[in-house]
Formats: sequence, structure tokens, C-alpha cells
Amino acid sequence: MKLDRNYSLIEIAKLINAKAIGDEEFVVSGINEIHMVTSGDITFVDHEKYYNKALNSNATTIIINKDVPCPEGKTLLISDDPFRDYNYLTKFFSPLQQPENPIYTIGKNSSVGINTYIHQGVVIGNNVKIGDNCIIYPNVVIYDHSIIGNNVIIQANTVIGGDAFYYKRRPDYYEKMHSCGRTVLEDWVEIGCNCTIDRGVSGDTIIGQGTKLDNLVQIGHDNVIGKNCIIASQCGIAGVTTIEDEVILWGQVGVTKDIIIGKGAIVSAKSGVSKSLEGGKSYFGAPAKEFKQAILELAYIAKLPKMFKDLKK
Amino acid sequence: MKLDRNYSLIEIAKLINAKAIGDEEFVVSGINEIHMVTSGDITFVDHEKYYNKALNSNATTIIINKDVPCPEGKTLLISDDPFRDYNYLTKFFSPLQQPENPIYTIGKNSSVGINTYIHQGVVIGNNVKIGDNCIIYPNVVIYDHSIIGNNVIIQANTVIGGDAFYYKRRPDYYEKMHSCGRTVLEDWVEIGCNCTIDRGVSGDTIIGQGTKLDNLVQIGHDNVIGKNCIIASQCGIAGVTTIEDEVILWGQVGVTKDIIIGKGAIVSAKSGVSKSLEGGKSYFGAPAKEFKQAILELAYIAKLPKMFKDLKK
Amino acid sequence: MKLDRNYSLIEIAKLINAKAIGDEEFVVSGINEIHMVTSGDITFVDHEKYYNKALNSNATTIIINKDVPCPEGKTLLISDDPFRDYNYLTKFFSPLQQPENPIYTIGKNSSVGINTYIHQGVVIGNNVKIGDNCIIYPNVVIYDHSIIGNNVIIQANTVIGGDAFYYKRRPDYYEKMHSCGRTVLEDWVEIGCNCTIDRGVSGDTIIGQGTKLDNLVQIGHDNVIGKNCIIASQCGIAGVTTIEDEVILWGQVGVTKDIIIGKGAIVSAKSGVSKSLEGGKSYFGAPAKEFKQAILELAYIAKLPKMFKDLKK
Repeated sequence: MKLDRNYSLIEIAKLINAKAIGDEEFVVSGINEIHMVTSGDITFVDHEKYYNKALNSNATTIIINKDVPCPEGKTLLISDDPFRDYNYLTKFFSPLQQPENPIYTIGKNSSVGINTYIHQGVVIGNNVKIGDNCIIYPNVVIYDHSIIGNNVIIQANTVIGGDAFYYKRRPDYYEKMHSCGRTVLEDWVEIGCNCTIDRGVSGDTIIGQGTKLDNLVQIGHDNVIGKNCIIASQCGIAGVTTIEDEVILWGQVGVTKDIIIGKGAIVSAKSGVSKSLEGGKSYFGAPAKEFKQAILELAYIAKLPKMFKDLKK
Repeated sequence: MKLDRNYSLIEIAKLINAKAIGDEEFVVSGINEIHMVTSGDITFVDHEKYYNKALNSNATTIIINKDVPCPEGKTLLISDDPFRDYNYLTKFFSPLQQPENPIYTIGKNSSVGINTYIHQGVVIGNNVKIGDNCIIYPNVVIYDHSIIGNNVIIQANTVIGGDAFYYKRRPDYYEKMHSCGRTVLEDWVEIGCNCTIDRGVSGDTIIGQGTKLDNLVQIGHDNVIGKNCIIASQCGIAGVTTIEDEVILWGQVGVTKDIIIGKGAIVSAKSGVSKSLEGGKSYFGAPAKEFKQAILELAYIAKLPKMFKDLKK
Repeated sequence: MKLDRNYSLIEIAKLINAKAIGDEEFVVSGINEIHMVTSGDITFVDHEKYYNKALNSNATTIIINKDVPCPEGKTLLISDDPFRDYNYLTKFFSPLQQPENPIYTIGKNSSVGINTYIHQGVVIGNNVKIGDNCIIYPNVVIYDHSIIGNNVIIQANTVIGGDAFYYKRRPDYYEKMHSCGRTVLEDWVEIGCNCTIDRGVSGDTIIGQGTKLDNLVQIGHDNVIGKNCIIASQCGIAGVTTIEDEVILWGQVGVTKDIIIGKGAIVSAKSGVSKSLEGGKSYFGAPAKEFKQAILELAYIAKLPKMFKDLKK
């Protein structure tokens, strides 16, 4: 991101209350993450592992949480929390713009809290409660009886509370189970674009406090997701499953119905979880097994061609 | 789901014409599925396999299709069809609310049948025909020339009839094939949220009668899906493929183009179907093979680490 | 597709300036692709490999790029470019209809080029630039600061520029990184339905000229996709990854963050790309490896049951 004009190092330092190392009049013209920086840019680093990468990058001003020697031709901004200060700067120079006079639909007995922004084209059903300080992006659809806490963000075109995928097999057809349950998003939940969170059949589908979902995630009916979970893009959770707190599911993971994934479990991308998993461990594969075991098996599979040859001998 | 007030057992029994076993004044305060029940709740069970689970659950009133001994402190409702009666009760206590005065768009030469509800924000193209008794949820988009039968339900934000993904490679670019085919959803089809059903290039994409799609399903151009199929969330079917009647694809299955999946085949979650499959069998894996063979291979893979060790000796 | 009336062979030949072989009054009543044709239909073939299939299909008029013997009871239209001429005919008989008086929303400092059609329900944020000759289908959402070139097509319900999925782990919660980057779609890009293209955190997410995305594709923040790539349905690319020109990702492929896929690489369906891939090669598997190696390993896995048996002996 280019800034609206050139700033001096000392101007930036004052904005974030950081200690400036280098020429106070040093020119700052942009702000960017480490993988995208060019000369004139500020970037940030807050982990020792990446100090060298940041200091040697094309960025000429680095927000850093250690008083390291300043590289030739560059400047530093010493901060106790570079992420916070970088975030402050991007918000300062490119603040979030809230919609003006959006037109949206809201049903009967539904309420929206204070300081909550509902964007254009959002459709909110009946008996829905939305808390304070939320942002609901355009064309989101929220079905009847959904409960949305405070500080919740829902990105565009997501659907909250679609009907459960639940049918009874009759001899000649499938009969639809009527969905009358709720969808509950607790405080600080964030949902990506084009996600689908189905309502409970007659109970609640719950996304716990602070849990973050990326785009195109499917959460089936009556799932209970814990607090501070990370669910990456294109994951799908079937239904009636419990995901405990602080679980991480990486991209395109599938989880079957009616199981439990224990607290803090981490499931690698593209895995398929077919049974309950103990917490605190890492998993991979379809069906998912403990990460080390899965990797070991892959290593042996790679040796099969040679092994068959050797055996033939 | 909590009921609006406490009901007596006999009141509920009369609603569904069931035989009540236990104190007629026994209090019923809620209704829920077996995995979510608490004291005061009604639940239902219609399969011998789950009788004990239901009778021993926290539910205190059980709709059941056999005259079993009533557990201490509980009551029973004997029904010839517990699913039907449970469904009746949830609809009675939490009826589906149809939208009032929704604003939607409809193109030229398009028609909507009687008793069909079109929700807010739906966009219907030209030359579209929608039958009777349908529900089209908010922000669904239906492209030109789509044909939708009777009793069809389309959940929010789904797209019916998007252009085929079909290009000709030219030396320096891809040239788009013009899509002018149709999308046909036969009677009783139900489509989840955020699905994409592409139109035929110049023929028809067809979803057969009674087939149900979960959320985020992709149906490519010119696919012909049979009757009473179940396609779970995040499945994708490439194009020009035939899925015969009563096929079940579980979650995140991918199906390549221009093949046939035979009647009644069942494909397990996360499988990738790379060639035609015979009907009446179960499959798993990527590429998918017969279920038993796939499971057998997985079992042997798990033995590889020990086998390599043994061979070394 | 049925035509509005019966046409004679010579009428059709004149429309596309082709040489007609057979009875000039031969009746043409429809137009369809080879897999869907019936008597009276025109179809096309432009590859020797498919000549016989086309000539022996139910189509009775074949647009073909070689002067082959005309089958009994059929007619030919000789063309130097059957795809172009077929496409011309479908556009002639079923032209794309642009929306009349659509209502959409556009933010501050945003502009739309000439001959660009914005459909009903589209929401365009602030500081967005959309070029000439584009089609933006209904209910698409375009976030602030997006840049869209000329001749771009975006199918319905897609989201351009959603927030990056980027959080910092704090002891008790995840802190959201403010997204202020852009999303850039270069000229001739086409995006399917219900896709999600996230904006850069503070840099740009870029989709290169002529690249085509199918439905339900996820492109994470700060990815840079090259020119003339094909990305099939339900692929997901994590973030900060570079996909060079002319890469093909088939359906449901996942790509991890911060890697490079080299020019012209082809990744088979359902693969999971966990590290950078050299260009010009084919890959398969999760994790993806060179196609031949992956297929070889699969072949040996299939032999495991017999091998274990033999070893036991």
C-alpha cells in the first residue's frame, strides 16, 4: 500500500509511539508485508526467526521488537508489539469504510445491536438477534432464529442457518426433516465469504467464542465448535460433531458426523477425519491418523517401487 | 427447542394421534433430537438399533414404533411412524414462516407457479419456468432458460445455470464457448446453500426427481443426475457425466467428466472418481476403487513400517 | 438446443460462410454438442481423434475442418475453424441477453467502463475500478479497492476482495490483521460462480490476464496467479503463493501458502500441493509428487495384499 504522501520516519514513530533508529527525516512512502515490500516501505517483524529476513528485505523501515543494529541505508522503529503497531498504521492510513445508507431486509422480532454495520443486500430472517459492534458484509443471508453475539464479522455472501441436510429414506423417496433449530455465533466469531453454517434440526449449531472460519467452509447441522478454533478454507464438518476448543483444521479437511475432535488437535490440510480424535495431537491423511504415523507410511510407500524390485531379485 | 409453554403428555398424544404410555399429565416442555435432549424433552426413535439409546437418554418422552416397557420416570408415545409424528410436532410448534412482501427480480417470459415462495433478493433470468409449491431462499440467482419443477427447494445464495466452464485453447489465449443450454431441476429436488449448478453448453444439465444436494456442491455443465440421489456437501461433478438413480456421494467427493456412475453406487467421503463405476457397489479412495479393496490396501499400508523392518532383518 | 424453426443446410452454411456438402435443402432443427445430439442437430468436430465419433453420432449435420466423405443420410459443413463457427451459431440463435434496468450499488470513487453490464443485486465498494466490456452477474460482491480490467466476466454470487484470513495468536484469542490491500483481475479474466478471491493484506492479490476460474474456487490473500491459467472447480490456494503462467489445476486441488508453482505445471484433481513445483511437469497426489511416480506408487500399493501373502509363505 502506497501512502497518500511521503512521511518522515519521525512522523510515523510518533503515530505508534515507537523509538526511531536512524535519520528522523528518512522517507517513508508505503507499508507492506515482508513478502511484498519495496524501497520506501515499512514492514514489521516480531519473531526472532524472521529478523534477518525482514532486516535484509527491500523494506527500508522495519518495526521490530528488539534493539538490533540498524542495517546501512535503513531505519528501525522499536516497538514492544510490532503486529499491533503495524495494524494501527494500516488502519490509520486505510481505515475501514462503513457503508452509507445500505438497504437490507430484516424480519419480525429481530434486533440489531449498537455500532453494528449491516451492508447492502443482507437478508435477516425473523426472530434473529445480532449483537453490538458487528459487521455483516453484503448479501449475507441469516435465517430465522439465528443468534449472533458481539464483535462478530461475517464476510459477503455467507449463509447462516440454512436447513439441515437430514432426510428419512422412504421406499420411493427421501422425506425432509423440518429444521427448526438455531444457529448461534458467539462473541468475536469471524466467518469468511460464501460459508454455509446450517441451523440445528431442533437444537443449536454453535460456533464458540473467538473461532475464525475462512472462506467456503461448511458447518453442518447441530455441530458444536469450541472457542478459538481456526477452520481454514473449504473445510467441511458433517453434522452433530463436537470440535473442542483451540482445534485447528487446515484447508479442505473433511470431518464426519457424530464424532469428537479433542481440544487443541491440529488436522493437516486435505485430511478426512473418520472417527474421534484425541486432543493435543497432530493428524494427517484420509482417513486421518497421527501425523508422524501418516508421514512414516508415506515414506515407506515411496520406497515400494525399489522394494518390489529388490524382492524380485 | 423449548415449547411456548408446558404441555401435558395427553395434549401431545392427541396432536399426533399416538397412544400415550404413562401419566397423562406428565410435563412436556421441549422437543429435540436424541443427541441434544434434556429433561422435559420429547425425542423420537424408529429403529430397533437405537431403542435403548433413546429410552436411556435424557429425554423424558419418547415417540417410538414399538410397545416397549416404559422406563421409570418417563413416558412413551406409541406411533406407527415416529419420524412423521416428530416432524409434525416441530412444524406445529415452529412452523415455516414465509416471507412477507419480498422484493425480487424476474426476467422476460418467466413464470412462477402457485404457492411458490420467492424470497428477498432472488434474481430470476429470462425464459425461466418455476413450478408450484417451491421455496426459493434469499439471494438465489437463476440464469436464463432454467426449468424448475414442483416442490423444489433452493437454499440461499445458490446459483442455478451459471455458464459452462468450457474453453478452447488458442495459441495465446483461451476462447470461451458460449453457453446457451438449460438447467433442469425436476420435481422434489432440493439444493443446499451456495451450490453451483451450471447450465448445459447447448444441451441440458438435469437433476432428477427427488434428488437432494447439500451445501457448496458443484454440478458442472451437461451432467445428468438421476432420481433420488444424495449428494453431500462440497462434492463436485465435472461435466458431461451421468449419475444414475439412487447414487449416494458422501462429502467432498470429486467426479471426473464424461463417465457413468451406475445405479445405487455409494461413494465414500473424499473419494475421487476417475472412471465409470458399476452400480450397486461401494467405493472409496482417490482414485476410487471398490470399498473393500481400498480398505484392504489401507490396512497393508499401515503394516509397511513393520514389514520393512522385518525384511531388513 | 432446438432452433426457432427448421432451417435448410444452405441457410446455415451462409451464416458461417462454410462449404455445404449434401442436399442444400437438408433440414436442420437443432444444435448441440456431440454427447447430446439427436437427428436434425448440428454438431462440430475439429480434432481428427474425434472425427469418427462425430460422423457416426446422431447428429445429421457436422461442422468439420476436413473434407471427409459424407456419411449416408447426413450433411457436412466444411470450416477452417469449427469451434468458432459453432460458437457463432449458438450466439446467433441464442444471443446473450443483457439485463434491463438492473439495480445495483456502487461506492464512492468507483467507476465502470463502457459496454460493461452490471446485473441486479451486485454490490461494488469504494475506490473500485471496473474496465470495459465486462459482465458482472447478479449478487456479485466487490470489496473496496478492487481493480478489474477489460473483458472480465464474473459469474453470480462470487466475492472479490474479501478480507485476508490472517490472525495473530495472542495468549487468549486471535487478533485480526486489518486488510487494506487490493484485488486485481487483469484483462480477459473469467471467474465462476460462488468463488472467493481475497484481497491482499496490504499488497495485491493478482489474477493474471486470460486466466479462467471455475466455480467455488478459493484464492487466498496476496496470491499472484499468472496469465492463461486454468483453475477448475473447488480448488483452493492458501495465500502468498505464486502460480506462474499457463498452470492448470484440476478439480479440488489444494495449494499451500508461500510456494511457487512453475510455468505450465499441470496438477491432477484432488491433489494437495505442499511445496514448490517445477514448471512444465505433471503432478498428482496429496502431497503432490510427479505424476508418473505417484501412479507407480499407486500400482505398487494395489499389489500389497498379494505381496504380503507371498511373503508369509
